Amino acid sequence: MVDEALRRRASAELPGWVLEGEELIGRWRFADFAEALAGAVRVGALAERADHHPDMRVGWGRLEVRLTTHSAKALTSRDVDLAGKISQALTPPHA
Amino acid sequence: MVDEALRRRASAELPGWVLEGEELIGRWRFADFAEALAGAVRVGALAERADHHPDMRVGWGRLEVRLTTHSAKALTSRDVDLAGKISQALTPPHA
Repeated sequence: MVDEALRRRASAELPGWVLEGEELIGRWRFADFAEALAGAVRVGALAERADHHPDMRVGWGRLEVRLTTHSAKALTSRDVDLAGKISQALTPPHA
Repeated sequence: MVDEALRRRASAELPGWVLEGEELIGRWRFADFAEALAGAVRVGALAERADHHPDMRVGWGRLEVRLTTHSAKALTSRDVDLAGKISQALTPPHA
Protein backbone atom coordinates (compact mmCIF):
# COMPACT_ATOMS: atom_id res chain seq x y z
CA MET A 1 0.00 0.00 0.00
CA VAL A 2 1.29 3.42 -0.87
CA ASP A 3 2.64 5.36 2.06
CA GLU A 4 0.06 7.97 3.04
CA ALA A 5 2.49 10.89 3.13
CA LEU A 6 3.73 9.97 -0.33
CA ARG A 7 0.18 9.69 -1.60
CA ARG A 8 -0.63 13.15 -0.28
CA ARG A 9 2.52 14.55 -1.83
CA ALA A 10 1.70 13.00 -5.22
CA SER A 11 -1.84 14.31 -5.05
CA ALA A 12 -0.68 17.82 -4.17
CA GLU A 13 2.28 18.08 -6.55
CA LEU A 14 1.25 16.03 -9.56
CA PRO A 15 -1.93 17.24 -11.25
CA GLY A 16 -3.07 14.90 -13.99
CA TRP A 17 -1.12 11.88 -12.76
CA VAL A 18 -3.18 8.87 -11.70
CA LEU A 19 -2.17 6.50 -8.93
CA GLU A 20 -3.05 2.87 -9.71
CA GLY A 21 -1.78 0.43 -7.11
CA GLU A 22 1.93 1.19 -6.78
CA GLU A 23 2.15 2.94 -10.16
CA LEU A 24 1.95 6.61 -11.07
CA ILE A 25 0.52 6.88 -14.57
CA GLY A 26 0.63 9.94 -16.82
CA ARG A 27 -0.97 10.16 -20.26
CA TRP A 28 -0.46 12.80 -22.94
CA ARG A 29 -1.93 13.51 -26.36
CA PHE A 30 0.23 14.81 -29.19
CA ALA A 31 -0.38 15.98 -32.72
CA ASP A 32 0.98 12.82 -34.33
CA PHE A 33 3.22 9.80 -33.93
CA ALA A 34 6.51 11.67 -34.26
CA GLU A 35 5.54 14.17 -31.56
CA ALA A 36 4.54 11.39 -29.19
CA LEU A 37 7.84 9.60 -29.78
CA ALA A 38 9.72 12.86 -29.25
CA GLY A 39 7.90 13.16 -25.92
CA ALA A 40 9.09 9.65 -25.00
CA VAL A 41 12.65 10.63 -25.86
CA ARG A 42 12.43 13.67 -23.58
CA VAL A 43 11.13 11.47 -20.77
CA GLY A 44 13.98 9.08 -21.51
CA ALA A 45 16.56 11.81 -21.06
CA LEU A 46 15.08 12.76 -17.68
CA ALA A 47 14.98 9.09 -16.69
CA GLU A 48 18.65 8.63 -17.53
CA ARG A 49 19.59 11.72 -15.55
CA ALA A 50 17.62 10.42 -12.55
CA ASP A 51 18.86 6.85 -13.10
CA HIS A 52 15.24 5.83 -12.63
CA HIS A 53 13.32 4.37 -15.55
CA PRO A 54 9.64 4.28 -16.38
CA ASP A 55 7.70 1.97 -18.62
CA MET A 56 6.34 3.87 -21.60
CA ARG A 57 3.71 3.21 -24.23
CA VAL A 58 3.83 5.18 -27.45
CA GLY A 59 1.17 5.24 -30.15
CA TRP A 60 -0.08 7.64 -32.79
CA GLY A 61 -0.48 10.89 -30.85
CA ARG A 62 -0.36 9.10 -27.49
CA LEU A 63 2.22 8.67 -24.76
CA GLU A 64 1.72 6.86 -21.46
CA VAL A 65 4.36 6.88 -18.73
CA ARG A 66 4.23 4.45 -15.81
CA LEU A 67 6.44 4.98 -12.80
CA THR A 68 7.11 2.63 -9.93
CA THR A 69 10.22 1.55 -8.06
CA HIS A 70 10.78 -2.04 -9.15
CA SER A 71 13.55 -2.68 -6.59
CA ALA A 72 11.19 -1.70 -3.75
CA LYS A 73 8.10 -3.20 -5.41
CA ALA A 74 6.45 0.04 -4.35
CA LEU A 75 5.91 3.65 -5.23
CA THR A 76 8.68 5.76 -3.70
CA SER A 77 9.72 9.39 -3.62
CA ARG A 78 11.94 8.71 -6.65
CA ASP A 79 8.78 8.15 -8.69
CA VAL A 80 7.14 11.32 -7.42
CA ASP A 81 10.34 13.29 -8.06
CA LEU A 82 10.66 12.05 -11.63
CA ALA A 83 6.96 12.56 -12.36
CA GLY A 84 7.33 16.19 -11.31
CA LYS A 85 10.28 16.66 -13.66
CA ILE A 86 8.34 15.04 -16.52
CA SER A 87 5.38 17.36 -15.92
CA GLN A 88 7.73 20.34 -16.06
CA ALA A 89 9.41 19.15 -19.26
CA LEU A 90 6.26 18.21 -21.19
CA THR A 91 3.18 19.60 -19.48
CA PRO A 92 1.13 18.01 -16.73
CA PRO A 93 -0.55 14.90 -18.18
CA HIS A 94 -4.22 15.13 -19.09
CA ALA A 95 -6.41 13.95 -16.24
CA MET B 1 -9.81 -13.33 -38.75
CA VAL B 2 -6.44 -12.94 -40.39
CA ASP B 3 -6.41 -13.75 -44.08
CA GLU B 4 -4.79 -17.17 -44.52
CA ALA B 5 -2.37 -16.08 -47.24
CA LEU B 6 -1.22 -13.19 -45.07
CA ARG B 7 -0.81 -15.50 -42.09
CA ARG B 8 1.35 -17.84 -44.15
CA ARG B 9 3.41 -14.93 -45.43
CA ALA B 10 3.95 -13.61 -41.89
CA SER B 11 4.91 -17.05 -40.66
CA ALA B 12 7.39 -17.56 -43.50
CA GLU B 13 8.94 -14.10 -43.56
CA LEU B 14 8.86 -12.96 -39.95
CA PRO B 15 10.75 -15.24 -37.56
CA GLY B 16 10.27 -14.25 -33.95
CA TRP B 17 7.10 -12.23 -34.52
CA VAL B 18 3.98 -13.51 -32.79
CA LEU B 19 0.50 -13.18 -34.23
CA GLU B 20 -2.13 -12.45 -31.57
CA GLY B 21 -5.58 -11.81 -32.98
CA GLU B 22 -5.07 -9.09 -35.59
CA GLU B 23 -1.76 -7.92 -34.12
CA LEU B 24 1.80 -8.79 -35.03
CA ILE B 25 3.93 -8.51 -31.90
CA GLY B 26 7.72 -8.35 -31.76
CA ARG B 27 9.75 -8.20 -28.55
CA TRP B 28 13.42 -7.37 -28.13
CA ARG B 29 15.87 -7.28 -25.24
CA PHE B 30 18.52 -4.60 -25.01
CA ALA B 31 21.44 -3.88 -22.69
CA ASP B 32 19.66 -1.05 -20.88
CA PHE B 33 16.95 1.58 -21.02
CA ALA B 34 18.74 3.91 -23.43
CA GLU B 35 19.36 1.12 -25.94
CA ALA B 36 15.72 0.06 -25.81
CA LEU B 37 14.58 3.64 -26.39
CA ALA B 38 17.06 3.98 -29.25
CA GLY B 39 15.46 0.86 -30.75
CA ALA B 40 12.05 2.51 -30.47
CA VAL B 41 13.38 5.60 -32.25
CA ARG B 42 14.69 3.44 -35.10
CA VAL B 43 11.30 1.77 -35.39
CA GLY B 44 9.74 5.22 -35.35
CA ALA B 45 11.82 6.36 -38.32
CA LEU B 46 10.75 3.28 -40.32
CA ALA B 47 7.14 3.89 -39.31
CA GLU B 48 7.26 7.49 -40.50
CA ARG B 49 8.78 6.43 -43.82
CA ALA B 50 6.03 3.83 -44.28
CA ASP B 51 3.34 6.20 -42.95
CA HIS B 52 2.19 3.28 -40.83
CA HIS B 53 2.53 3.45 -37.07
CA PRO B 54 2.86 0.76 -34.43
CA ASP B 55 2.11 0.85 -30.75
CA MET B 56 5.31 0.46 -28.76
CA ARG B 57 6.16 -0.34 -25.17
CA VAL B 58 9.56 0.59 -23.84
CA GLY B 59 11.04 -0.43 -20.52
CA TRP B 60 14.47 -1.03 -19.05
CA GLY B 61 16.14 -3.24 -21.68
CA ARG B 62 12.81 -4.11 -23.30
CA LEU B 63 11.00 -3.03 -26.46
CA GLU B 64 7.69 -4.39 -27.68
CA VAL B 65 6.25 -3.40 -31.06
CA ARG B 66 2.62 -4.08 -31.95
CA LEU B 67 1.44 -3.76 -35.53
CA THR B 68 -2.08 -3.77 -36.87
CA THR B 69 -3.96 -1.68 -39.39
CA HIS B 70 -6.37 0.39 -37.30
CA SER B 71 -8.26 1.74 -40.33
CA ALA B 72 -9.02 -1.80 -41.48
CA LYS B 73 -9.41 -3.19 -37.94
CA ALA B 74 -7.31 -6.03 -39.26
CA LEU B 75 -3.80 -7.20 -39.97
CA THR B 76 -2.83 -6.22 -43.52
CA SER B 77 0.17 -6.50 -45.79
CA ARG B 78 1.29 -3.08 -44.55
CA ASP B 79 1.90 -4.62 -41.14
CA VAL B 80 3.84 -7.54 -42.56
CA ASP B 81 5.88 -5.18 -44.75
CA LEU B 82 6.79 -2.92 -41.85
CA ALA B 83 7.56 -5.85 -39.54
CA GLY B 84 10.04 -7.13 -42.13
CA LYS B 85 11.76 -3.75 -42.28
CA ILE B 86 11.94 -3.58 -38.49
CA SER B 87 13.51 -7.06 -38.33
CA GLN B 88 16.12 -5.93 -40.86
CA ALA B 89 16.88 -2.70 -38.98
CA LEU B 90 17.09 -4.19 -35.47
CA THR B 91 17.29 -7.96 -35.62
CA PRO B 92 14.43 -10.43 -35.72
CA PRO B 93 12.61 -10.24 -32.37
CA HIS B 94 13.23 -12.96 -29.83
CA ALA B 95 10.64 -15.71 -30.08
